[in-house]
Amino acid sequence: MVEVFEEISPADFFYRNRDIAGFTNPSRATYSTIRELVENSLDACEVHRILPDIYIRLSKISNNSKEPGTYRIRVEDNGSGLPSDIVPSAFGQVLFGSKYKLRQTRGTFGLGGKMAVLYGQITTNSETHITSSLGKSISEYRLMMDIQNNKPIILSQKNRSNKMKWHGTIIEFLTEADYTRAKSKIIEYLEQTAIVAPYANLTFVDPRGRFYKFDRIIESMPKPPTETTPHPHGVDVETLRRLIRISHVKTMKEFMRRHFQRVGETTARKFLEFADIGPRKNPNKLNSDEIVRLVNAMKNFEGFLPPDSSCLSPIGIDLLKAGIQKVLSPEFVEVHQRRASAYSGFPFIVETGIAYGGDIPKTAGILLYRFANKIPLLFDEASDVSWKVINNIMNWRHYKVSPDEPLAVFVHICSLKIPYKTVGKEFIADRPEVEHEILNALREVARKLHLYLSRKNYIERERKRLNIFQKYLPKIASFSTKLAKKEKEPDIEPLLKDLMKYDAEEK
Amino acid sequence: MVEVFEEISPADFFYRNRDIAGFTNPSRATYSTIRELVENSLDACEVHRILPDIYIRLSKISNNSKEPGTYRIRVEDNGSGLPSDIVPSAFGQVLFGSKYKLRQTRGTFGLGGKMAVLYGQITTNSETHITSSLGKSISEYRLMMDIQNNKPIILSQKNRSNKMKWHGTIIEFLTEADYTRAKSKIIEYLEQTAIVAPYANLTFVDPRGRFYKFDRIIESMPKPPTETTPHPHGVDVETLRRLIRISHVKTMKEFMRRHFQRVGETTARKFLEFADIGPRKNPNKLNSDEIVRLVNAMKNFEGFLPPDSSCLSPIGIDLLKAGIQKVLSPEFVEVHQRRASAYSGFPFIVETGIAYGGDIPKTAGILLYRFANKIPLLFDEASDVSWKVINNIMNWRHYKVSPDEPLAVFVHICSLKIPYKTVGKEFIADRPEVEHEILNALREVARKLHLYLSRKNYIERERKRLNIFQKYLPKIASFSTKLAKKEKEPDIEPLLKDLMKYDAEEK
Repeated sequence: MVEVFEEISPADFFYRNRDIAGFTNPSRATYSTIRELVENSLDACEVHRILPDIYIRLSKISNNSKEPGTYRIRVEDNGSGLPSDIVPSAFGQVLFGSKYKLRQTRGTFGLGGKMAVLYGQITTNSETHITSSLGKSISEYRLMMDIQNNKPIILSQKNRSNKMKWHGTIIEFLTEADYTRAKSKIIEYLEQTAIVAPYANLTFVDPRGRFYKFDRIIESMPKPPTETTPHPHGVDVETLRRLIRISHVKTMKEFMRRHFQRVGETTARKFLEFADIGPRKNPNKLNSDEIVRLVNAMKNFEGFLPPDSSCLSPIGIDLLKAGIQKVLSPEFVEVHQRRASAYSGFPFIVETGIAYGGDIPKTAGILLYRFANKIPLLFDEASDVSWKVINNIMNWRHYKVSPDEPLAVFVHICSLKIPYKTVGKEFIADRPEVEHEILNALREVARKLHLYLSRKNYIERERKRLNIFQKYLPKIASFSTKLAKKEKEPDIEPLLKDLMKYDAEEK
Repeated sequence: MVEVFEEISPADFFYRNRDIAGFTNPSRATYSTIRELVENSLDACEVHRILPDIYIRLSKISNNSKEPGTYRIRVEDNGSGLPSDIVPSAFGQVLFGSKYKLRQTRGTFGLGGKMAVLYGQITTNSETHITSSLGKSISEYRLMMDIQNNKPIILSQKNRSNKMKWHGTIIEFLTEADYTRAKSKIIEYLEQTAIVAPYANLTFVDPRGRFYKFDRIIESMPKPPTETTPHPHGVDVETLRRLIRISHVKTMKEFMRRHFQRVGETTARKFLEFADIGPRKNPNKLNSDEIVRLVNAMKNFEGFLPPDSSCLSPIGIDLLKAGIQKVLSPEFVEVHQRRASAYSGFPFIVETGIAYGGDIPKTAGILLYRFANKIPLLFDEASDVSWKVINNIMNWRHYKVSPDEPLAVFVHICSLKIPYKTVGKEFIADRPEVEHEILNALREVARKLHLYLSRKNYIERERKRLNIFQKYLPKIASFSTKLAKKEKEPDIEPLLKDLMKYDAEEK
């Protein structure tokens, strides 16, 4: 038997293995399609500090009620738009994009949007229409994908004038979908996106013509994420060799300062001493052993400052609190933002919220809302690090909370690189550093909840006590007066007033 | 701000996202490296019906006890070997291989072995040595990977004569590893591999020089998996267009018969009628609408025979039983093989085993052993479909089994395509068809266990009763004799013998 060997393109790889990118079945694909396109749109706005206006429309083409059926999806945004020559590859070529750099973005794999297009094509054999503008002329494309060769096929292209200076991107294509089964997850996704991006207008028109509008509730946007250089702790041989290849500097000291974050004159000098590499050595002259020695030294040198987190864009405690209040109207809410931490040289920030009572249903477990780089994560909850922390590590009894109380927990992680375990971005790996930060952030808000609940219980007990006094004190006073054969009853008001202070305080 | 767009190679993609392929940290990478190389070796033997002899050696290079450290990994097999011109790409190019066809293999992504090599290179900057032969001359390579361009770099190549007609492959390279932390999983992996491949010799020499030998216990191998054509139910537009492109047939009827499994003259005719496509139409002349109509008809036509499972290679009930007995020496074991079923046109077979008592520890839950295409799955158990069936769906009380009893469950799924949820092959998605088959297969063995346990309880109760009789009957006999003032006691043996039948039966 002769084995046949072949090379396949990355588009072909993800076509064959679309399950791992969240395109498992028609219903899941419907959800993933909308999600990936919305996230691209949000990124296209946010990175350029544009308040997002995103319009999503899903309409059924097949004229029967059978599911799955053929649908048309259209997503419009007012983002930065794409340069005309980039459009074909940006939507028709897997592993092509602007997200392969050290910057916090929703998208990380440069894959989601293309997978949506690919799924549409393999189920309906149809083309994709793209309209995009940077604010100058508007370019329109009709595209298909050559999956076997991972290349876009341009069916037509034209330019239109743009008197209104519109900028943004519109994408439209046919795809197989199952809205009946995907609906609840799609709405949940949009609701939760509105929690973490309350500065966005999101409009969704569903196949039955229903409008779901999530209006902007504040006009200010958080500081956008910025691009950064790598931290030495996370560098491997490959990264180092690439930096050497592109670098123009002539000495190792300059190399360290230029290409790594938070490395100044002194740190560079001390580090190179530690690594036993001459500070004036030309980076291009490093031999293989020296490169390995340098990488190992980078991992083990303790004199580097912690990774710079100024490139990150967390939600912020005010926005997070407002979002939670809007959705759950809880009786009590507390949020907390941890200081930046890092894993493998990637800085990250954990934000948590806890909410009690209000619209939170009493369920068997704690309601968990998970977010990563401002994306809601809705699938495979039990595989996520936050679920592990909440259900297996956190000792809730310590905070006098039992899991059958109406309790909701929010966890947001933002990072230059979220340690997702799947390309479908469903759940986060239990990296020890991340786990530790989530636990500490949760303890912080749980402590506050504990205080609130203790106080609440105390007030309740006091009020009960007061009720008893209010009921019996007049009787005792009257009885004692009779017994003492006096006529005037003592004034019990000051006594009662004294007891009433807790009631007043609560009001 | 100007966005920079770039294209990255698939090797670069997996380099950046090695977490999703199971290379998360040094300890996990150690496990994944050994696992991927062993699985490649087993595939190289099994597909060619060679009884596998696999030798694995991991030795520490760095001369201190610090972990992670630099290690040398070497894996030797007696498989089919690789053609000399294929060697560089087979080990130095991602998405190149022999596994992109419809055939049951351990590897499915054509990625694992290269990721092991890639991880070694980025952590130690070292080259990979490959020795391989098909049985004629032996070729030796020293290779590195150009990750940015996804191309192998050949450092040297030479041919040696091969008087012994040796065939197989030897791979050796340096890598960063953490054997201290990975050890238990590696040993567990080898033990479980020995359960499902008892026809293999596996030898592992660990960094402390300890030998772990898993000897072949039977000389016969299961029928190897064979390649097959797709089943119409699983075909999408892309697959159909590729088949049209490569096909030489001139009519649609011939096209259906030639390129799809289990489609004969009659089925082809009936199907084309259903799809409203002329049987004499030339496949190359199909327009876009007809292609979509054909694909939809393939999904909905109910006249196709179920997918052919003769291409699959299950473990078989005898081997599975022998494997379980060897590892757990249980008091009771039962195995079951379901008939073939299918999801999305891919046939699959579920095999289950249940074991009770013996060396099985009494733990809080049921011990679960998971296998897919003869690979043990050791990570992320709680995300796996089998875990869901066992813990959330199966009603164990129905079988009078409580989860704190010493119980172990084995689930093996073999398929042309295992619905893994990650590239790291850790767990299987809960496809309804797969879930349903696992549940039914488990019910089958659980029923047998129930019978056994009922019988066991019955015998125990009977024995207790018998004990009482044995104790008191002589006394009663003697007492009654005295009371009746007789001298000779009645013979109680026949009575006892009658009661003893259960005891005898058990023996």
